[in-house]
Amino acid sequence: MSNTVSADIHAIRNQRPLIHNITNFVVMNSTANALLALGASPIMAHATEELPELLAIANALVINIGTLDKHWIHSIETALTHSKHTMPIVLDPVGAGASTLRTKTALRLLASGKISVLRGNASEIMALGQHTQTTCGVDSQDSSEAAITAAKVLTKQYRCVTVISGAKDYCISDNDISALSGGDPIMTRVTGMGCTASALLGAFLAVNENFHEAAAHAMTCMKNCGSQAAKMAKGPGSFWVSFLDQLSAL
Amino acid sequence: MSNTVSADIHAIRNQRPLIHNITNFVVMNSTANALLALGASPIMAHATEELPELLAIANALVINIGTLDKHWIHSIETALTHSKHTMPIVLDPVGAGASTLRTKTALRLLASGKISVLRGNASEIMALGQHTQTTCGVDSQDSSEAAITAAKVLTKQYRCVTVISGAKDYCISDNDISALSGGDPIMTRVTGMGCTASALLGAFLAVNENFHEAAAHAMTCMKNCGSQAAKMAKGPGSFWVSFLDQLSAL
Amino acid sequence: MSNTVSADIHAIRNQRPLIHNITNFVVMNSTANALLALGASPIMAHATEELPELLAIANALVINIGTLDKHWIHSIETALTHSKHTMPIVLDPVGAGASTLRTKTALRLLASGKISVLRGNASEIMALGQHTQTTCGVDSQDSSEAAITAAKVLTKQYRCVTVISGAKDYCISDNDISALSGGDPIMTRVTGMGCTASALLGAFLAVNENFHEAAAHAMTCMKNCGSQAAKMAKGPGSFWVSFLDQLSAL
Repeated sequence: MSNTVSADIHAIRNQRPLIHNITNFVVMNSTANALLALGASPIMAHATEELPELLAIANALVINIGTLDKHWIHSIETALTHSKHTMPIVLDPVGAGASTLRTKTALRLLASGKISVLRGNASEIMALGQHTQTTCGVDSQDSSEAAITAAKVLTKQYRCVTVISGAKDYCISDNDISALSGGDPIMTRVTGMGCTASALLGAFLAVNENFHEAAAHAMTCMKNCGSQAAKMAKGPGSFWVSFLDQLSAL
Repeated sequence: MSNTVSADIHAIRNQRPLIHNITNFVVMNSTANALLALGASPIMAHATEELPELLAIANALVINIGTLDKHWIHSIETALTHSKHTMPIVLDPVGAGASTLRTKTALRLLASGKISVLRGNASEIMALGQHTQTTCGVDSQDSSEAAITAAKVLTKQYRCVTVISGAKDYCISDNDISALSGGDPIMTRVTGMGCTASALLGAFLAVNENFHEAAAHAMTCMKNCGSQAAKMAKGPGSFWVSFLDQLSAL
Repeated sequence: MSNTVSADIHAIRNQRPLIHNITNFVVMNSTANALLALGASPIMAHATEELPELLAIANALVINIGTLDKHWIHSIETALTHSKHTMPIVLDPVGAGASTLRTKTALRLLASGKISVLRGNASEIMALGQHTQTTCGVDSQDSSEAAITAAKVLTKQYRCVTVISGAKDYCISDNDISALSGGDPIMTRVTGMGCTASALLGAFLAVNENFHEAAAHAMTCMKNCGSQAAKMAKGPGSFWVSFLDQLSAL
């Protein structure tokens, strides 16, 4: 069964899946807006007392470790424990490699075996891959190649789809790799575009059980809306405004 | 004494009331911007050590329980304890009904007897009404009707004005009910529009002692700016930009 | 050695300095976007476990005490302790004077002797000056004059450059004072413009060792982008969008 991107978007708008986000302070507003523009229903909540009830009604969980601290790690771990067996879960390992706290936290979350899709940039994926297998090729000349090698290691080890986002996006699962072009360099000048991709991944996973396909569809939306919005934009401020408009107009 | 909407706006711009917000992480930036665009002066602060001093100079308090946890509940309760007897206080029970923590927290805050205006959507108001009186008609066929019945129960029990926001807004006090049309469906595709209404309520309550009237005026502004901004907007991104511009141009 | 504003901007875009921000919840998104638009690389992180590692790779540190509480004060103090001797550090004493907690926290941070640039509005600078020297002239008729007097006291006491922002900005160091005109009154209707100035200060300090000059350049950018964006804007919503576009187009 293969859905098209537009079939997934249609399903998101019909079903309005509830996407539970435990994410960082910087992007809470922008990722909530991106999910609403796409047609999904976002909730941001972290209190351990309410996570079991809220996760019982959620259709996907998006975990993002930016601005983490011990309280948020505890919330994230509580959410993982209480997530339904069938719930799609996205992990965005923001800053993995930049601090031991982030690298170790991301690896511990992956080790739960509950992550459906891991999405990061090349350096985050390589940092995680390095700690999973010491010889995963991070000394490769080509950083895309090294990141893909790391992603394959992570995909195999943690049984997840791994998405590397960058100038070209890669969706990597056990037997498949999709490469996606498009987007625009201005996307690197707006905060939280990667976090936005992770949030949207939650919405696509909620309506498409083929996680590789859902991931590729989400990243295709990011690329398409990004390149369309870039045409309208005079700079990163107007780019973000247009990006939300484009998501809504899909 | 009956003020018009424009008289209240004029008063807000002359007096620049200081609106103290203890609100959620998602909307802090957007509600601060909405209050500034309207002409009020926002402050966001939650440290219990400074709440007594800050509340002594504030003209209204806006409490919003989105992204709550035990630390924020403690801040909110400290703020209620230290609020001046005459200070108008708005409660936005974000997510009441979705979790026991939120429902119980909202009810406990209402039980303080200090809430001037309670503003929620129909499902939040019904959830709170249900816990206040078990036979408040939430099984009604018509959800607007059920929400209004719940609002009447809450208004009577907690001696507050209750505002239900939705396609039509209702302001309900002991002897009066105002229904307001307008706005635009795009308002449901932008995060924190309800929270924005609650913040603006604080500003109107700070300048108009007739809380029913002040509430109706605040909601009228939301509706008017919403429908004007929707005309300019290409989607939810440009809608929010125009909404702030409209608030400022009122 | 005297750099021009454009030489500093060029250096920021070439070097992409990593600016570590421990800032308030209201402006995290907007200051991250402002730094990206300028060409710098922002990081927002507060977990004490990772601060030593992250500060080891940062090129400047921006401390902002808005929405502070005891946990964030602990993070800020940990960051100061672990900052490299040569790292430029900006302090934004948001709300100093409005609460004892904020005034005392700002003074304690200044007393570390590690603050390179202190930036606040006139009332914040006067509040801090008053506690540093009881006869610093805050009873002056002219509030600009009183703020400048306070700034001189603070500059001498804490060996920092002090920036007062307002309709006219002042950069004050031991032997020099620069006054900058420009900008637009609409800048007071958008949340976090002061916080944005503090964030950009971090980027300029990271590339220009003459802190007085770097501060004047950062404030000149704020003024220029502010007045340009004001020409495009229909209100505070579209102003902020244009401001980011202008920063990027510098």
